[in-house]
Amino acid sequence: MNIQQEAHQMKLVSPLMANTSNELRNQALTAIRKALVDHQTEIFAANQLDLSRAKEDGISDAVYKRLKFDDGKLSAVTEGIDQLISLADPIGRVRLHRMLDDDLEMKQITCPIGVIGVIFEARPDALIQISTLCIKSGNCAILKGGKETRETNRVLFSLIAQAAVAAGLPDGCLLQVTQHNEIDELLSCDKDVDLLIPRGSNAFVQYIMNNTKIPVMGHADGICHIYVDAAADFAKALPILVDAKTQYTAACNAVETILVHRSIAPDFLPKLADAFQAANVRIRGTKEVFDLLPGSYPQEDIMQEEDFHTEYLDLIASVKIVDSVEEAVDHINRFGSHHTDAILTEDDAAANYFLSMVDSAGVYRNISTRFADGFRYGFGAEVGISTSKLHARGPVGLEGLVTYKYQICGDGNIVADYAQGRRNFHFRDL
Amino acid sequence: MNIQQEAHQMKLVSPLMANTSNELRNQALTAIRKALVDHQTEIFAANQLDLSRAKEDGISDAVYKRLKFDDGKLSAVTEGIDQLISLADPIGRVRLHRMLDDDLEMKQITCPIGVIGVIFEARPDALIQISTLCIKSGNCAILKGGKETRETNRVLFSLIAQAAVAAGLPDGCLLQVTQHNEIDELLSCDKDVDLLIPRGSNAFVQYIMNNTKIPVMGHADGICHIYVDAAADFAKALPILVDAKTQYTAACNAVETILVHRSIAPDFLPKLADAFQAANVRIRGTKEVFDLLPGSYPQEDIMQEEDFHTEYLDLIASVKIVDSVEEAVDHINRFGSHHTDAILTEDDAAANYFLSMVDSAGVYRNISTRFADGFRYGFGAEVGISTSKLHARGPVGLEGLVTYKYQICGDGNIVADYAQGRRNFHFRDL
Repeated sequence: MNIQQEAHQMKLVSPLMANTSNELRNQALTAIRKALVDHQTEIFAANQLDLSRAKEDGISDAVYKRLKFDDGKLSAVTEGIDQLISLADPIGRVRLHRMLDDDLEMKQITCPIGVIGVIFEARPDALIQISTLCIKSGNCAILKGGKETRETNRVLFSLIAQAAVAAGLPDGCLLQVTQHNEIDELLSCDKDVDLLIPRGSNAFVQYIMNNTKIPVMGHADGICHIYVDAAADFAKALPILVDAKTQYTAACNAVETILVHRSIAPDFLPKLADAFQAANVRIRGTKEVFDLLPGSYPQEDIMQEEDFHTEYLDLIASVKIVDSVEEAVDHINRFGSHHTDAILTEDDAAANYFLSMVDSAGVYRNISTRFADGFRYGFGAEVGISTSKLHARGPVGLEGLVTYKYQICGDGNIVADYAQGRRNFHFRDL
Repeated sequence: MNIQQEAHQMKLVSPLMANTSNELRNQALTAIRKALVDHQTEIFAANQLDLSRAKEDGISDAVYKRLKFDDGKLSAVTEGIDQLISLADPIGRVRLHRMLDDDLEMKQITCPIGVIGVIFEARPDALIQISTLCIKSGNCAILKGGKETRETNRVLFSLIAQAAVAAGLPDGCLLQVTQHNEIDELLSCDKDVDLLIPRGSNAFVQYIMNNTKIPVMGHADGICHIYVDAAADFAKALPILVDAKTQYTAACNAVETILVHRSIAPDFLPKLADAFQAANVRIRGTKEVFDLLPGSYPQEDIMQEEDFHTEYLDLIASVKIVDSVEEAVDHINRFGSHHTDAILTEDDAAANYFLSMVDSAGVYRNISTRFADGFRYGFGAEVGISTSKLHARGPVGLEGLVTYKYQICGDGNIVADYAQGRRNFHFRDL
């Protein structure tokens, strides 16, 4: 079968998957956990194959760390599965229960989205997190992982799919896609795939968004800002800025642009320059930023207005001076990507203005932007971070993987009776 | 200013609109209600111009009724505004309040979507409903109504926008687009418009969906089904089927396909044919349907499998015999448009199977599909009906016009401390 046929088949399986009990889905998760632990030697061996090929290809240390699947990562994912099992059933929840009339009962009930396609980077733990999140939320899933971990993915997927079906989940509820050219085939399955979640580079996510009619959840840019207010506590600000830039520089929630209030700039900017120098971070900024710093700076680091759209994903930060919290908010709403932005301040009024007016999925006070993550929000795990305003925003866990339907039971009710005034609605929430 | 500049301007106004109080938004709604009542003579006069031009163009009675704005419609919309005023504030609601650690407090707070473009059919009451829903939910709105009511729309919009701004809402929170060629310009505003809601013909909605990067909420097809089960009560079934087909034939929630259980078909189908003949409804169906009906039928009314994708929006219905509730569900999930589908049965097991397994925004038992409507669900009004599974499904009222943001306040927290085990998360829901 080709991907289109497989996706069509999965669409027919999805109502069965949607109607499995939480007990059965938890049993499947328990079986998956056991299979991963029991077969760890096999998984690690497959991972070694991926790692040695990657080494031959000369990958960086950072990428090597992501590809590697070891004891530590296994215990992290089994802990994640335990968390998922302990979470309440996200489906079948009655979000609204209303009598429309004496004999007309309406329920708004949560249900799975259906068939979800996830295309993700080369990280073996991602495959486990995504498939178990989809199972817990009653969704069928088509998974395509990065080719650099293909051996590990092959073993992991086969263990997970077999354990899930052996535990009683419907045959065909999970599918792995392994060939890069199959991505385009997946993008054409808009009749059968309900949602795509692409993770990866900006260019890759943009490609997906531009080449499919399937709704896409996720984000392309992650241009996060930190605004250092006039009332910032420098002792908090400097470690936060270093953390937000360096703790995981390639992450979408790393800070890219730092806005500094003019009144503190002469005092603060030299301290920031020292802290960033110690952390190997290069500063780019407007001319007035460099005027406040000692030494000379290369001409190419002097920024113009339009340069503030840049996402570096590197040890580089844009710095700009602003006159007020209002100007900071305007800059962020214009140049940001509506991902995660923070204010550093001890002034409640400035903080409240910023938190209310910044139009982003995450608005923070006095913390690092790196906290934007499903695990850190207590969601157990995440399938991605959404900068869309529709459906799910921010880190997407179980809640973002369900939708709802309206179920109404009556006794022969017809609209003509209500339209012509023979009967009237009597709304009453239960 | 052209539409792009106007939309960009509106984007900058949207955070101000998002932060207006419920009290102020209700004051604006009260002022709008008053302006509509005070200026009714002016509105009715403008409507007369539209109506006479429409008559010259030779429109049908049904369309004439939709274009007409009279005393009855005015009191319906003012009643709708009163309902909206009485509804709780949809924004600023804390949906999740969680301590991530002792000094790290997270809130998931509802907020408006931002800038919404609504393109709607020639119905003056639609303009009022949509603009007041957007105001109550703190959204800025760009409105484009059908050209057949342009005089009425011009007067209505000017009364509404003036009353809203005079009451204190931000200048520029509402915009009217009047030229058809401006629709394409609106479709290109993906940087500034957060959501498009097109209403109208299948072809028109498809055109919008295919020609913009802005998320689109709504539906193209409305292929609704009613399944008459073996355990159906005929006394309920016949009036429901007539209502669902004829009460408003051109509506998206009118029934298109009727599935009848084989065991009752010989008894039920002749009764259905009589009821439909009395209501002027033409039956199309599979050959075995006609074999159970008296008289002869034109060859063109005999349907093949692929014909069941048809949405008639006319006094025509597709009829098919199925062997079981399972077959009915399979047919609906394959040929339906995931809008609204009903089962008619006195058998709880069949009903529960149907309600669980049919993958549609509305799943009904023993009532007409015509109930799929925001007013009938007690939402006050609706901006449209969504067949998307993301964000909002079914009739979209206030709830579908808000999103949320995550707000986290800390005290200098950095991720490195948590990643390296110096600190641990202590999740605690408040």
